[in-house]
Amino acid sequence: MNTTEALDLGYADRVRASFARQAFMDHLGARLTCVEPGHCEVAAAHQPQLTQQHGYFHGGVMASLADSAAGYAAYSLMPADATVLTVEYKLNILRPGQGQQLVARAQVVKSGRTLTVVQADVFAVNDGRETLCLTSLQTLMRLDGKPDDARRAGGRQA
Amino acid sequence: MNTTEALDLGYADRVRASFARQAFMDHLGARLTCVEPGHCEVAAAHQPQLTQQHGYFHGGVMASLADSAAGYAAYSLMPADATVLTVEYKLNILRPGQGQQLVARAQVVKSGRTLTVVQADVFAVNDGRETLCLTSLQTLMRLDGKPDDARRAGGRQA
Amino acid sequence: MNTTEALDLGYADRVRASFARQAFMDHLGARLTCVEPGHCEVAAAHQPQLTQQHGYFHGGVMASLADSAAGYAAYSLMPADATVLTVEYKLNILRPGQGQQLVARAQVVKSGRTLTVVQADVFAVNDGRETLCLTSLQTLMRLDGKPDDARRAGGRQA
Amino acid sequence: MNTTEALDLGYADRVRASFARQAFMDHLGARLTCVEPGHCEVAAAHQPQLTQQHGYFHGGVMASLADSAAGYAAYSLMPADATVLTVEYKLNILRPGQGQQLVARAQVVKSGRTLTVVQADVFAVNDGRETLCLTSLQTLMRLDGKPDDARRAGGRQA
Repeated sequence: MNTTEALDLGYADRVRASFARQAFMDHLGARLTCVEPGHCEVAAAHQPQLTQQHGYFHGGVMASLADSAAGYAAYSLMPADATVLTVEYKLNILRPGQGQQLVARAQVVKSGRTLTVVQADVFAVNDGRETLCLTSLQTLMRLDGKPDDARRAGGRQA
Repeated sequence: MNTTEALDLGYADRVRASFARQAFMDHLGARLTCVEPGHCEVAAAHQPQLTQQHGYFHGGVMASLADSAAGYAAYSLMPADATVLTVEYKLNILRPGQGQQLVARAQVVKSGRTLTVVQADVFAVNDGRETLCLTSLQTLMRLDGKPDDARRAGGRQA
Repeated sequence: MNTTEALDLGYADRVRASFARQAFMDHLGARLTCVEPGHCEVAAAHQPQLTQQHGYFHGGVMASLADSAAGYAAYSLMPADATVLTVEYKLNILRPGQGQQLVARAQVVKSGRTLTVVQADVFAVNDGRETLCLTSLQTLMRLDGKPDDARRAGGRQA
Repeated sequence: MNTTEALDLGYADRVRASFARQAFMDHLGARLTCVEPGHCEVAAAHQPQLTQQHGYFHGGVMASLADSAAGYAAYSLMPADATVLTVEYKLNILRPGQGQQLVARAQVVKSGRTLTVVQADVFAVNDGRETLCLTSLQTLMRLDGKPDDARRAGGRQA
């Protein structure tokens, strides 16, 4: 069911460069830990500034990692001359984000010409043991002729 | 359709105290700008560390503000001896988060004994003019006998 | 926030003709009770074959009415030479569908070139009094050059 | 990640009896084809009255089957003295429902004391070959002390 062929052989560099331009990922201490055609993983270590009122990872942090992982899973299958937009997503928080780090894993379910549907999960990691904390279903959109690097493309709107 | 009666007259102080315990909101520079029974608003100014690759607010920031506003809109209607959990939400990103600040506004649609359904929007503000960027539908859960302040309640899991 | 200008002045006839081709709406006894640019209403009377185990309207009936109303709210704003597809939706069931009839009301929130976002509610009607039972947020897609009437267009896939 | 232990050994009879009370499932020609702890399948053959304007299964039919399958997957893990309510769901339609029959398959992702999260897919079947048409993420709620059979329990509201 998964599309696993990249249209652009330079997909990994393209994904890494785009991720590096997301200042907010750096603000979360998030790292891109894996990118393959139709698959992406993003991780972040626990830090006090990422927490909610009980000291666990804030739901917004979990959502942000799932969002980025899903976007780049979709983007990995797009042509070089395109950018990706998040259309919408739905997520369920299954357990509190309680762990030393979070790992978000995203997998393309259906890659269409315009829309890509991605399933993304977030796990809390404790001493190497993973617990599923969030599951989500996301829709992404491909915009052709709009490379992701705004500086190359000028100041046009994505 | 909205429930506008607070069970706990101290709801505003309770919401403000809980918001202040969310270190992640501080990390986003987010402020609680309004709380009324069944309604809550959260705002954050544009900062470079909150952006995606095109310089706009990252979708994760918009989602985090909507999540907090919805949670506290629900929480405002709960009894003092309860805490609130996000069960799930779905959001659509309608336009890029392009503005000097974001404002998230959440309104309870249905307040039940266990579950509360909230509608939350995020607007980008430019020179006082608001543009709707994100709309969402969220489900929150009330946990009785578990006050939101973990320090008072001991180290139990929320 | 709503788009209220129809691109095609014949939108109402086009919506009514497409609705009439949906055999499943007839199977539900559903009627198209209102169509305006960006807005649509669909209603169905209570019948024993539309119920779940407690005698109320089945959730699937409520979802089907919301789906059709949202699709036609979006379709009303599209050009004559296009068809509409449901991309995804999320719904919350707020109360059981208990009444003499159901009315689904859909309103376009954002109408884009490719995607349209619609908010749709379903009300149960008892002696003229309406109770909100379901609220939803839906994403629809416009397919250009694919008129909705398959017989005119030949057997191509929508 | 799945909960596969039934609390009530009579779960299969209980699920089948409840399904049989859903008159709307009969109206769709739907059959309960499999029930195991935390898993359920519902199928329906193509009939002209189940179609949309292009002759494929209407999205409302696909949603209804996914909804029932998810509800009974959750219900299979609940105690005998409980009933199940659909809280909310989100679905993506990946491909048109084009086939001789539809099969909905639902699997519990997380079974909590009050809430159960279920993943449900719908496949179109053509000459024994299955194509994924719909994927969904659903939240169900357990109501204790309210057996599903309304006649045994009196006329109380579920």
